[in-house]
Amino acid sequence: MNLSGIIGYPVTPFSHDNKSVDLNKLGKVIDVLLKAKVDAIAALGSAGEAAYLSESEWKQVAEYTVKYVDGRIPVVIGVAQLTTEQAVNYAKYAYEIGADVIMLSPFSYYKLNEQEIYSHYESVSNSTPLPIMIYNNPSTCGVDMSPEFMLKMVDGIENATMIKESTGDIQRMHKIYKLSKGKVPFLNGCNHMALEALNAGASGWCTAAPCLIGDQPKQLFDAVKKGESEKAKTLFYKQYEFLEFIVSSGLAAAVKSGLALQGNEVGGPRKPLLPLNESAKNRLKGMLAELV
Amino acid sequence: MNLSGIIGYPVTPFSHDNKSVDLNKLGKVIDVLLKAKVDAIAALGSAGEAAYLSESEWKQVAEYTVKYVDGRIPVVIGVAQLTTEQAVNYAKYAYEIGADVIMLSPFSYYKLNEQEIYSHYESVSNSTPLPIMIYNNPSTCGVDMSPEFMLKMVDGIENATMIKESTGDIQRMHKIYKLSKGKVPFLNGCNHMALEALNAGASGWCTAAPCLIGDQPKQLFDAVKKGESEKAKTLFYKQYEFLEFIVSSGLAAAVKSGLALQGNEVGGPRKPLLPLNESAKNRLKGMLAELV
Amino acid sequence: MNLSGIIGYPVTPFSHDNKSVDLNKLGKVIDVLLKAKVDAIAALGSAGEAAYLSESEWKQVAEYTVKYVDGRIPVVIGVAQLTTEQAVNYAKYAYEIGADVIMLSPFSYYKLNEQEIYSHYESVSNSTPLPIMIYNNPSTCGVDMSPEFMLKMVDGIENATMIKESTGDIQRMHKIYKLSKGKVPFLNGCNHMALEALNAGASGWCTAAPCLIGDQPKQLFDAVKKGESEKAKTLFYKQYEFLEFIVSSGLAAAVKSGLALQGNEVGGPRKPLLPLNESAKNRLKGMLAELV
Amino acid sequence: MNLSGIIGYPVTPFSHDNKSVDLNKLGKVIDVLLKAKVDAIAALGSAGEAAYLSESEWKQVAEYTVKYVDGRIPVVIGVAQLTTEQAVNYAKYAYEIGADVIMLSPFSYYKLNEQEIYSHYESVSNSTPLPIMIYNNPSTCGVDMSPEFMLKMVDGIENATMIKESTGDIQRMHKIYKLSKGKVPFLNGCNHMALEALNAGASGWCTAAPCLIGDQPKQLFDAVKKGESEKAKTLFYKQYEFLEFIVSSGLAAAVKSGLALQGNEVGGPRKPLLPLNESAKNRLKGMLAELV
Repeated sequence: MNLSGIIGYPVTPFSHDNKSVDLNKLGKVIDVLLKAKVDAIAALGSAGEAAYLSESEWKQVAEYTVKYVDGRIPVVIGVAQLTTEQAVNYAKYAYEIGADVIMLSPFSYYKLNEQEIYSHYESVSNSTPLPIMIYNNPSTCGVDMSPEFMLKMVDGIENATMIKESTGDIQRMHKIYKLSKGKVPFLNGCNHMALEALNAGASGWCTAAPCLIGDQPKQLFDAVKKGESEKAKTLFYKQYEFLEFIVSSGLAAAVKSGLALQGNEVGGPRKPLLPLNESAKNRLKGMLAELV
Repeated sequence: MNLSGIIGYPVTPFSHDNKSVDLNKLGKVIDVLLKAKVDAIAALGSAGEAAYLSESEWKQVAEYTVKYVDGRIPVVIGVAQLTTEQAVNYAKYAYEIGADVIMLSPFSYYKLNEQEIYSHYESVSNSTPLPIMIYNNPSTCGVDMSPEFMLKMVDGIENATMIKESTGDIQRMHKIYKLSKGKVPFLNGCNHMALEALNAGASGWCTAAPCLIGDQPKQLFDAVKKGESEKAKTLFYKQYEFLEFIVSSGLAAAVKSGLALQGNEVGGPRKPLLPLNESAKNRLKGMLAELV
Repeated sequence: MNLSGIIGYPVTPFSHDNKSVDLNKLGKVIDVLLKAKVDAIAALGSAGEAAYLSESEWKQVAEYTVKYVDGRIPVVIGVAQLTTEQAVNYAKYAYEIGADVIMLSPFSYYKLNEQEIYSHYESVSNSTPLPIMIYNNPSTCGVDMSPEFMLKMVDGIENATMIKESTGDIQRMHKIYKLSKGKVPFLNGCNHMALEALNAGASGWCTAAPCLIGDQPKQLFDAVKKGESEKAKTLFYKQYEFLEFIVSSGLAAAVKSGLALQGNEVGGPRKPLLPLNESAKNRLKGMLAELV
Repeated sequence: MNLSGIIGYPVTPFSHDNKSVDLNKLGKVIDVLLKAKVDAIAALGSAGEAAYLSESEWKQVAEYTVKYVDGRIPVVIGVAQLTTEQAVNYAKYAYEIGADVIMLSPFSYYKLNEQEIYSHYESVSNSTPLPIMIYNNPSTCGVDMSPEFMLKMVDGIENATMIKESTGDIQRMHKIYKLSKGKVPFLNGCNHMALEALNAGASGWCTAAPCLIGDQPKQLFDAVKKGESEKAKTLFYKQYEFLEFIVSSGLAAAVKSGLALQGNEVGGPRKPLLPLNESAKNRLKGMLAELV
C-alpha cells in the first residue's frame, strides 16, 4: 500500500457549542473531497484538529471515516499522541476499524532525541501490521527529523514505508530522493510548495485544499505527472495565494470558514483556536470567488 | 501572592511498569526540595511530565502535592492543556484543592495567534480567583510570546500578575523590566541563565536543580540579592555545567537519573521519553560528585 | 537586454604566488564556458572572488572578459563594493569597456536598511545606462532583500530590470512571480535549487557549474523549458550532489580544484580562502568521474 | 597587555562632502572619550566605519589616533580586511605606528571554515608582536566563531590573547569562562548586554556609548566590579534603551547624529550608510536629554 496522488484532509466538524463532533457533517466534508477526485482520505491530521479531540471523539471520527469511505479509496488515520502508550492504543484502533495506513508524527512537549523517536515508531510498528507514513512537521509537532534519520527508520522499522515531508524545505525532498535512490516514496505536506515537490518526485500531495477548491490540486498533480510543465505552472500560481493563505491562517480555521462561505456550515475550530476574523474571511471569500 | 526566591520543580515518580504515578515517592521528592530550602513548590511543570499524564493522574499529583506541602510554602500548579476547556477544568481543580498559583502556558499543536492566546488566558482567569503566572517557553510549548504581549495580558487580564520567561534570551527580561518600569514580577525559567536573570531583576528562579544539588540554587539567589557579586559568580559557574546538562538532556530524564544515583529511585520518564543512556548517566554522576 | 538560459560564472585564475591575476588562464576558463554552451558570461561574481581583488585587478578582469568574449554572448559584470562611491566607479567602468549588464549586490559590513539599499541602487543606476540585475545573496552579502522590496526597486529605479535570487528559498521566487504577474524576469542563483527555480518560472540559472560539467546545466534548462519533466528530473538528480558540493565547499575553491583535476591549473583561491583539502578533492574527483 | 574597563570607540568624522577624513574632528571625539574616563581607545572598529575607508584614509586614522592619545591610555586598532595579505599589511602598520593591541575579525564575503580563519589569524600573529584581540561579530563580519574555536586559537596562536564577543548570546561568555577556567580574558561587544557580561566575568566593555553619555558606562563597570549590584542594575536600566537604540540604528549613524545634537558636528556616515532620519533623531534627542 503506497499512496499516490492527492491525499485529501477533511476538517472535523463540531456541534454549535463546540463540545461534540458532528459526524453527519463530517460525512458531507468527505463527500466534498470525493467529488474533488482525491486519491485517498486522511482523517485526524492537522486539519482535523486531532490534537484537540478527546479519546472517544478521536475514535468516533476514525471509525466513521472508514465506514463512510467504505473502501472506495484508501483511508489514512493520523496518530500524533504525546505518549507512546496512547499512540499504540490509537494505532491498534485504526487497524481494528479497517484503516489502510497510519500517519505517525512524534508530537511532543519535550524535544525528543533520535533514540526516543525511533523507539516510538518501533513500538507503533510492532503493534499493528498497517503501513506507517512517517510524518515530519516540526512547526506543529516540535520535533524535526532529518532525511537521513527518517530513511534509517524506513530501513529498520518494518512497517515504516513512506515519508510525508512538511518542513517547507525542498532540499529535504532532494535528499530523500538521492539517499534512497528514488526508492522510498515521499509525499508533500507543504501546500505552497506543491509544484516543486511534485517535480522533485513526490508521489503525492497531502492537502486540505480540495475541501474548498475541488479538483484543482488533482489537476496540478496530473499536469506535473504528464510533463505538462507550462500548464502545471499556471495551475500552481492560480492556487498559490490560496494555498499560502490556508496554511498561514491555520488550516482548520481557514477551511471551516471557507466551507461556511460555500454553504457547508461545519462549526468553528475548537478553542484556543478561533475562527477567521472578518478581514481574513473577506480575503478568503475573494480568493474563492476567483478560484471556484 | 507574588512568588520570590527559588521555585522548586519536583519530577513525577512512576511505578516500575511506567503505568501509574507513585505518590509516596512524590512525597519524598518534595521532602528533598523542602530540605533544599525552596521558597515554593511548582508541581506539573515541564520537569513533572505533566503533558504525559492522564487527567486522573494529573489530578492525583496536584491534590497530593498541595496536601503534602500543607501550607508550609506556596504551591504552584502548572496548566498546559491543549484545549481551553481542559485548561479551565484543570485550573478550577487547582483552585478547589487549595493551590496558590496557576502557571499557565499556551501548549499548542497549531501556532496560536495573539488573539487566541489572550482569549485562552482570559478564560482561565475568569474561571478561578487564583493568580496566574504567564509562562513563556516556546521550545516546549511551540508558541512564543513577546514581552510586549505578555505585559498586555498582565494589564488586561485580572489574575495574570507575573511572568515566567524561559526563552533563554536575557533581552526579554530587560524588556519586561523596562516596559513595566520594574513593576511586573518576572521569574527565570532558563537554568543556565540564572545569574544574569537574577541580576536583571528576576524575583525568582524556577528550577528542578534543587532535586539534586540541595540549596546551592538558593545560595546563588541569596548572593545576588545581597550584592555579593563575586560569590554569586563563583556559585553560578560551579553549577553551570550541571544546569546546562539537565536542560539539554531533558529535565525529567536527567533529574530522575540523578535521584536514582543519590539513592532515590523514582522510576524512569514516560515513553517516548527515555532514561539517560549510560554515558550521560556517567557524566551526571561525575558532576554530582563534584557538586554535592 | 534580458538574460535567459545559463549564465556562466568563470573563476578568476591567479599566478602561483597568489599575488596577481592570470589573464591568459582566464581566457581558457571562458573557453570552457563557451564550449559548455552558456548563454552569457558573468565575471566578478562570487565564484570570481571579486571581493578579494584590488581595484586594478578588478578592472583588468572586467576589461579582459569583455574583450575576450567579444560580443559572442552578453557579458555581465558583478559589482559588490562596500561604498556607494566605489560601486558607481566600478559600474561606470563596466559601461566604458562595453559590458552588457551590471549585477549589483549590496555587500555590506553594517546591516543596511531599505532606504540605504534603495539609494545605493539608485546611485548606480543614475551613473550608467546599463541594465542592472538586482542580486540578493544574504549569505555572502550580509543583507537580505524581500521580493516586495526588490520589486519596488524594479518599479522605481530606471535601470533595475531583473532579479537574481540566491537565498535558496523557493517561496521567494513564487512571490516575485505572483507579485509581478510574471513580468519581472528572475534568475536562479542557488545551484542545488535549479530544478524548482526553472519550473517556477526563472528565466535563467546563474552558475559556475559549466566550468566543470560542460553543458549539463544547459541540458537541464532545455529539458525544463521543453516540458520534458522526467528528463529534467533525471538530469537534475544526476548533478545534484555535485551542485550542492561546490556551494557548500566554497565555489572558488571547489571550481579551481575541479579545473586542476581536469588539467586546467588555475592556481588556488586567494587567502583567507584555502584550496579544498585532500578528502574534499577526492570526493570531487569521484563526482566528476561519474558526471563527465 | 590585557585590557580592562571601558574600551571607547570613536567614530570617524568625514568632511562635508563625505570624501575625506577630518582628523581635527577625530581629535575632538577622542577628547570626548578621554573625558568620559575610558580605559582604552579602539580606533577603526565598527563604529569607526573602517570597512568604508580607503587604505590611505585607514592609515591616517590609525596613525593620528596613536599620536593624539600619546600613551595616556592603550590604543587598539581594528583590522577587518577581506584578504589575509591586506590584514597583515594593516597589522604591520598598526605596529609600526605604535599601537598597543590589534582587534582582528574575519570579515568575509564567503563563509570561511575554521581552517581558513585559523590560518588568517596565524598569519597576522606571525607578522607583528602585538597582542591580538579575537573579535567575533557574525552580524557584521558574516562569520561566527564558537567559544571552543576561539579558545583553540588563544592556545595555539602566539599573540592571540583575548576575546571580544559580540553575538549577544550570554552563554558564549559562560562557555569561554568555564572552558578556560576563567583564565582567558574576554570583553563584551554587545552594548545592551553589558550588565550580564560584566557579571559573568567580562574584563571589559567595548563601546561607542561614551561618545555621547560620558562616564555612565564607566560607572556601570565600576559598580559591578565593586559588587554594588543594585546600583549596577539601576545604572544599566537607565542606559538600556539608549544602548539598544545605537546598536539597532547603526552605530556610526547614531553616534554621529548624537554628537551633532551635542554640538560636535562630525559629518554623516559614508554611503551607502545614511544619517538617522528625523524621527530617529528625535528619539535620540529625547533619550540624551534624559541621560546627560
